[in-house]
Amino acid sequence: MFDLYIANKNYSSWSLRPWVLMKALEVPFNEHLVPFEGGFGASHEAFKRFSPSGLVPCLVDGDIAVWDSLAIVEYVAEQHPNVWPNDKAARAWARSATAEMHSGFGALRDECSMNCAVRVELNSLSAKLKADLARLDTLWQQGLEGFGGPFLAGEHFSAVDAFYAPVAFRVQTFKLPVSEAAQAYVERLIALDAMQAWYQSALEEPWREPMHEAETLKNGVLKIDYRKS
Amino acid sequence: MFDLYIANKNYSSWSLRPWVLMKALEVPFNEHLVPFEGGFGASHEAFKRFSPSGLVPCLVDGDIAVWDSLAIVEYVAEQHPNVWPNDKAARAWARSATAEMHSGFGALRDECSMNCAVRVELNSLSAKLKADLARLDTLWQQGLEGFGGPFLAGEHFSAVDAFYAPVAFRVQTFKLPVSEAAQAYVERLIALDAMQAWYQSALEEPWREPMHEAETLKNGVLKIDYRKS
Repeated sequence: MFDLYIANKNYSSWSLRPWVLMKALEVPFNEHLVPFEGGFGASHEAFKRFSPSGLVPCLVDGDIAVWDSLAIVEYVAEQHPNVWPNDKAARAWARSATAEMHSGFGALRDECSMNCAVRVELNSLSAKLKADLARLDTLWQQGLEGFGGPFLAGEHFSAVDAFYAPVAFRVQTFKLPVSEAAQAYVERLIALDAMQAWYQSALEEPWREPMHEAETLKNGVLKIDYRKS
Repeated sequence: MFDLYIANKNYSSWSLRPWVLMKALEVPFNEHLVPFEGGFGASHEAFKRFSPSGLVPCLVDGDIAVWDSLAIVEYVAEQHPNVWPNDKAARAWARSATAEMHSGFGALRDECSMNCAVRVELNSLSAKLKADLARLDTLWQQGLEGFGGPFLAGEHFSAVDAFYAPVAFRVQTFKLPVSEAAQAYVERLIALDAMQAWYQSALEEPWREPMHEAETLKNGVLKIDYRKS
């Protein structure tokens, strides 16, 4: 069975991607959660015990370590159906949109750090963040309309939805202004069993990592904290 | 036949990746070079004529547009052999290392912008750039030793080498300090027919794009410019 190493469910957007994909597709795996501790440098060193790059997520399959979220997706796709859409055009679109998130949307990731449990009122939206949100609306609309929905590349939840799953939590946390269709898609994602399971675990985590907490509030005001401990 | 849209060979590191992969594997394609012009915003708008994200490279195959370098690689891999290594462990490693470059090595990409034609003496190396170079040495050593060389994932040039091809030009341009094994690998890459063809075309390009030229020299001094026009 696969071993998937992840960090805090409340913070780790990269960890969420393969986790929610494998849960949604019922791919069995052992979960190993190693919380961030002592800032980036210390966590990086701690993660090197299982991840060659010192980053999470990392999938371990016997002697093989797969240390990047997109590489994990392709590794799982070689052994399990439905990771990508079966239709060739939908699959090409899904891989492009997934890769665009993997290397792009820098302002969204930087200014709206994932922190599932809280609700924050942003002081302002930068021009770069607005551009990222506009691109998101265009991209999601193209997918949802082009392949018939309700997911980005058609009828079934696939890797491209998993890659945008952290965006759904970001939209919820920061109440980001997106189109009606995009908001409805965000709510569909968050309502999924796998997303709800992740979210509930995030609320129950006892850890507060100062760097992530500061990142969350660097351009906004805390309104609600739903954490239970 | 595939249509591959790229930008200037002298500057566009993302374009180089699928181009050099397809040339090395003898995958036929029509090349469409659209030079950067009028700064980032103007180029972005111009590229939207063929690329949904306004970014290059973009592969067009009939009705299908694949608008990211890594998605292009996977699209080509579905139709052509040897894009990834045949060995499962080598392939998992290659995909991880490729994805790590796709979303990482930020300091290397930011501080050492690709500009094939020139030679620059850096004023200093930032701590983040040193960390990227250290990671590069570790990663390349792991690949070259683990799979027997002379390429990163074994005997044959594959997508992971294509993804690190721009790094070879960066090491050459900025004379970056890397290990002896890494330097030898850089020289092996640059000596490839496909890399030489790209490099010669870069030297012959008539365009000077002010933003890219400024980026190249933001932390260094121009020593040589090999451009021919």
